[in-house]
Order: sequence, then structure tokens, then C-alpha cells
Amino acid sequence: MKYYLGTDLGGTNIAVGVVDEEYHLVAKESVPVGAERSVDTVIESMLEAAGRALDSVNLGVEQIASWGIGVPSCIDPKTQLLVNANNFGWRNLPLYSYLDKYLEVPYYVENDADCAVLGENLCGAAQNCENVLMLTLGTGVGGGIILDRKIYSGADSMGAELGHVKLVYNGEPCTCGQKGCMEAYCSATALIRQARQAMERNQDSLLHELCEFDAGRVDGKMIFAAKAMGDRTADEVIEQYIDYLAAGLSSFVTIFRPERIILGGGIAEAEEALLGPLRKRLWDNTFAAAEIGVPEVRKAALGNDAGIIGAALLEMNARNKSGRL
Amino acid sequence: MKYYLGTDLGGTNIAVGVVDEEYHLVAKESVPVGAERSVDTVIESMLEAAGRALDSVNLGVEQIASWGIGVPSCIDPKTQLLVNANNFGWRNLPLYSYLDKYLEVPYYVENDADCAVLGENLCGAAQNCENVLMLTLGTGVGGGIILDRKIYSGADSMGAELGHVKLVYNGEPCTCGQKGCMEAYCSATALIRQARQAMERNQDSLLHELCEFDAGRVDGKMIFAAKAMGDRTADEVIEQYIDYLAAGLSSFVTIFRPERIILGGGIAEAEEALLGPLRKRLWDNTFAAAEIGVPEVRKAALGNDAGIIGAALLEMNARNKSGRL
Repeated sequence: MKYYLGTDLGGTNIAVGVVDEEYHLVAKESVPVGAERSVDTVIESMLEAAGRALDSVNLGVEQIASWGIGVPSCIDPKTQLLVNANNFGWRNLPLYSYLDKYLEVPYYVENDADCAVLGENLCGAAQNCENVLMLTLGTGVGGGIILDRKIYSGADSMGAELGHVKLVYNGEPCTCGQKGCMEAYCSATALIRQARQAMERNQDSLLHELCEFDAGRVDGKMIFAAKAMGDRTADEVIEQYIDYLAAGLSSFVTIFRPERIILGGGIAEAEEALLGPLRKRLWDNTFAAAEIGVPEVRKAALGNDAGIIGAALLEMNARNKSGRL
Repeated sequence: MKYYLGTDLGGTNIAVGVVDEEYHLVAKESVPVGAERSVDTVIESMLEAAGRALDSVNLGVEQIASWGIGVPSCIDPKTQLLVNANNFGWRNLPLYSYLDKYLEVPYYVENDADCAVLGENLCGAAQNCENVLMLTLGTGVGGGIILDRKIYSGADSMGAELGHVKLVYNGEPCTCGQKGCMEAYCSATALIRQARQAMERNQDSLLHELCEFDAGRVDGKMIFAAKAMGDRTADEVIEQYIDYLAAGLSSFVTIFRPERIILGGGIAEAEEALLGPLRKRLWDNTFAAAEIGVPEVRKAALGNDAGIIGAALLEMNARNKSGRL
């Protein structure tokens, strides 16, 4: 049996998993990201987590075929520098030089959202699909695309930033400095902002009670719970949110026409309360849907492990790229 | 020398060109589209134009390597039917069966906007680029994408409908039945609509004089001429139009990051009056432009011939697809 290591360099945890050649995650360990976020410290944490994960299943590093690392940034193929990882305060960082110093196995580095969609494609909610689009609806909106069974990240590997495609012309400010990005309307953060604004206008909303009259405590789960309890304010907020999401997705369908769309992140936990109305709106709001249909929309199957599993399986992506599979 | 035939099935003319293996258009003939738009009539017109074009350079059909046909629709790869060509009133049409009946040379059929970007890529404003995005700003907004030297038209060959990507959430109605599409803001038709609205608000605009007080006569050229003459209304209309266009393009850059963007169609004839301010706005309004830059924007070089030349060279695209080049 062949084994692979996969790392997800998240904002709060550095998680490492061991994945076997049948795509099962057989071990997983993580180390919290501390205050010290130098590359050396982060890589040492990664090695520590990897060591513990391997130990837990009695494997040695010599049994590892390759190590994939998902990073919250892109790597500029011209300069070979990691462009910008806000969480770690890394900008124009020669990550490969550091990895060369520490790692003894072949390694692959890709954007974390790209790893997630690869994981879902190989062994999650989009198995056997050749073209997949995934959005992760969390603090931000992450996007990953599989075209023809390979990660697609733009001509120069710095594209496919789906969360920063414009949704509302001249709209809300986004964390990226632009205006009206999909992230500014479809992230969990945006849903919460929309709910707080609606709560101000509707003092009788159940949401006030649910958050114990502290709007700072409102989260996505609470908003869907209020809707389920018949709260009209929550219902309107969610309807509006789904309308934004459908509009954004419709543009991606009009461009890529993937077989399947996968939604991950906290908001996707709402399952059918989100997906049911979303499917209908996507149909109604997509160019030529009546003639040529729209893709199936599913919830991500691998949860937070998608990034780790996808990272571990980056070798498969590299093989598809070179046509070796 | 090898020769290829290329056809552009346009709304007003059926144009056929002869292109040699060095990508020169050596002959071109066209036949107006008449009232009778049955497939047989249209193909007979196409054959007539082809015959005249070949005669003009003393070539016979036996010297033609292949014939490429650009159609204003997509072909559903599952059903093999041409989905919807409004201009001809064709819906779910078995075009291949008709072509099989009439044509004796190998032929290729692609969407006309895809043919245009292929032409520009092989011998126009995007030579030697591997990734190109083209928008044709005319009556509508046509879009074509080249990825890795091949036409990209979505997973099922029915995507890349860039004119119908949403630009303004819940915006102006589009000809396609959706709302807020790029076409509804960035076509020549949209620019003219925007100018007429501004003229109503500004009775002192030069545009009134230029159109001889008949707003029905306003066209794109007139709007740019008024701006050049210092008309403030025209200036504002064009500034707004360019802002819409930059916002739409910025989304495509954020997804694809092509090396070059090509603009064709009537509006692109404004050249630097359009391209100068557009380049600046694209830079200002694109995700991470400061870190990773934006593509070069150029005017299309082949004009109305791009579609014919690209169609003629569809064999090259097919070779790239199969990896034979």
C-alpha cells in the first residue's frame, strides 16, 4: 500500500493527514498556529503533526510517496514566490527553498481551495466528474475548479479566485480592497452582516432572542435555526443570501458548465434549507437553462478534511497534468 | 500550398473566405441573408459564395484541406444539435446531417465568437499567446476564450458565454431573458441606450445636434465623436460605459488570468479613447493587480474577417486539441 501526506495550513490549525492509495484518510493530527508565524516555526509544526500522524498508524517517512501542502495563497510561477498569505503575514516568500531544506520526500504545493476541490473530486461529492466547481462558504469565499480532471487555477496559476469575481457592480467593500466581490455577499461573514442589518430594522425578530440580545453573537447556524422556527426576518435574509449565491453561481455555470457544483464551509451545513431553494434559483437565473440545463449542486462530502485529502493527493493531479494517468 | 475555407454565418451576410496555410485571407465573397432562412437555402448561399471565392483565385474544391463554419450558436455535444441560432430561427437543428449532405471536404463547426478569438490568436492581435480572452462589443457582446492554445467553450462546449455573465446584480433586462448580463451594459446597443438616457437629462448635449435631433440615429461613433469635441454628457456616458466594461473584464481576469485581452466589434473602433482609460480602470478594479498585474488589452486586428479566418483555421484548433501540433 502506498501512502501520502497532506497538509492544510489553516488560519487556526496546521493539520496533517495520512492518506492511503485508496484515498482513505487513515490518520490526522494538528497543531495550533501560535503567535510566532515564521516559516521555520510553521514548517516545524507541520513536521511535528506529520510525525504524530505517522506514528499513530505505525508508518515511517520512508513509506510516504509524496507530501502535498495546501497554502492560503498562490505561488507565482515566474518568481516561484508565495504571493500573499494574510493569515501568516507571508508576502513574496520563497516557500520552496524552506521546504527543500526540511522535506526529504517529493512534495507538491497548491492553493488550499484547489486542494479541497481535488479531494472532493477524487473521493468526495464529485467523484467521477471531469469538471467541477467548488465554493467554500466560510469566513471568506474560497473557490476551486477542476477542468478535464485537473486543477484549473488560471493561465498563470494565480487565477480561479472565484470569491473575488464581482457580483454586485460597485457594491459592498471586500476584504481584498475591491468592491462588490462575491465574498462580500456570499461568505458566512456577509450572511451575518446581512442578518444584523435586518435585525436592526426588525426588533421583533426571533434572532434577538436567539443571540441573547447580543448581535455580536449571531452566527450562520442561528440564522438558519430562526428561519426553521418561522422567523420572517431570518427567512428574508436567507432568501436574499441565496439569491446572491445563485446569481454568482449562474455566472460560473455560463462560463464553465461543470457537471457538478460543490458547496463547502459552514453555510453548506444548512444542507437542504440552502440547497433546495438554491437549485431552483440557479435554474431560474442561469442563461439558457431551459435549453441546456444547469449542473447538479451538492454539499461537500469531506468537510474540513477535503483540504488535507486533496493536498495528499496532489500527486494524482500532477500525473493528470502530464497525461500519465 | 494548402488552402482552407472559412464561413461566417452572420445575421446579414453569409461570408466565405479562402485562407492559405500561412494564414493569409486570399479571397472573400459574401451573399446577403435573404428572407428565406431554411438550412438548405443558407448552405446553398454558402456554397455559392465559396464557389465565387475559389474561382477568384483559380482554386478548385480539391485543393481545399478543410472547411470551417462559424455559427451563432453552440452545438450540443450530446444531441449533436445546433441549440439556438436566433438570426436564422434555427432551434435544435441537426446541422451536421445537412452539412454531410452538401459538403465533400472535411468540415468543422464552432461558435462564431470562438472562431474570432482563434483567428486573432493565430494571426491577429494575440499571436504567440497561449491564453487569450476576446470580447466583441457589437449589437451584443460575444465572448471567446483560448486556453493553452485551444478554444475553450466550457465543459460541455456550451459555456464561455461571456456576454451573459452577470455584471450588475438584478440589473437591466438582457436579450437572453436574464437580468444584469454584461451584454446589457457593454454592447454597442447598451452604450447607445445609456447615451439616449443621458441626452434626455441633458438637453444641451452636443449629441442632440450630431444626431440631427433624432435620438434614434445615435450610434457609438457619434458618442465618441461628441466626447472628442468636449461634450460633457458624452464624456460621462463613455466613462460609465468603460467602468462597466472594466468591472466585467476584471472578473474574467480574476478567473482566467490570460496573457492578453482582445476587444473587437464596433465599439473597439474607438481605439485609444476606449483602451486608454480602460487599461487604467482594469488595473484599479482587479483583484490583486498590484501584486500580480493585469493582462495587456488590445484592439482586435482582423476586424470582421476574424470570424472567417478563425473558422478556416479550425483544423489547427482540432490538431491542438488532439495534441498533434
